[in-house]
Amino acid sequence: MGRVVVEVMPKPEILDPQGKAVVGALPRLGFTQFSGVRQGKRFELEVDGEVTPEILAAAQEAAATLLSNPVIEDVVSVAEATDPAEVSGEASGAPVGA
Amino acid sequence: MGRVVVEVMPKPEILDPQGKAVVGALPRLGFTQFSGVRQGKRFELEVDGEVTPEILAAAQEAAATLLSNPVIEDVVSVAEATDPAEVSGEASGAPVGA
Repeated sequence: MGRVVVEVMPKPEILDPQGKAVVGALPRLGFTQFSGVRQGKRFELEVDGEVTPEILAAAQEAAATLLSNPVIEDVVSVAEATDPAEVSGEASGAPVGA
Repeated sequence: MGRVVVEVMPKPEILDPQGKAVVGALPRLGFTQFSGVRQGKRFELEVDGEVTPEILAAAQEAAATLLSNPVIEDVVSVAEATDPAEVSGEASGAPVGA
């Protein structure tokens, strides 16, 4: 069973209130390292078989038509999920790298 | 100027109504290849200088405390943004790979 990961971000010229909220909250929690934050979306599309080039092409089309709003968002990545830890998201139940 | 990308997904055992809505809409648009969809979040954290290991550690902590709700979400990735096209999100103004 394969998975395709689609990543969508607001266009740089578009206001991103969610990102603004995060960038305002970070210093209050002691994180002063970050000067800007943008928040986008990440989709995992599951396929029953292998991730073929045809599947990736379909995912790309779905990303451009359904998963993103091309007026305000960019599809920044459409790729097969490669890392098993990333696919399951919780090999150990703990955040990756924690 | 560097960027850190943080990716957050709902835990596998948690219901994901947004993903369910997408998986219901896909076949109506002719995409019958996908059997499941999960929707998560993708953050780009901007830093003024280089992305050092200390910055990554701070991003990891911010991901676990502010950017995700550990009860229902997993932080699946915290990494420096490597691809310039991914960072800007619209080198050509068109979706990547389109």
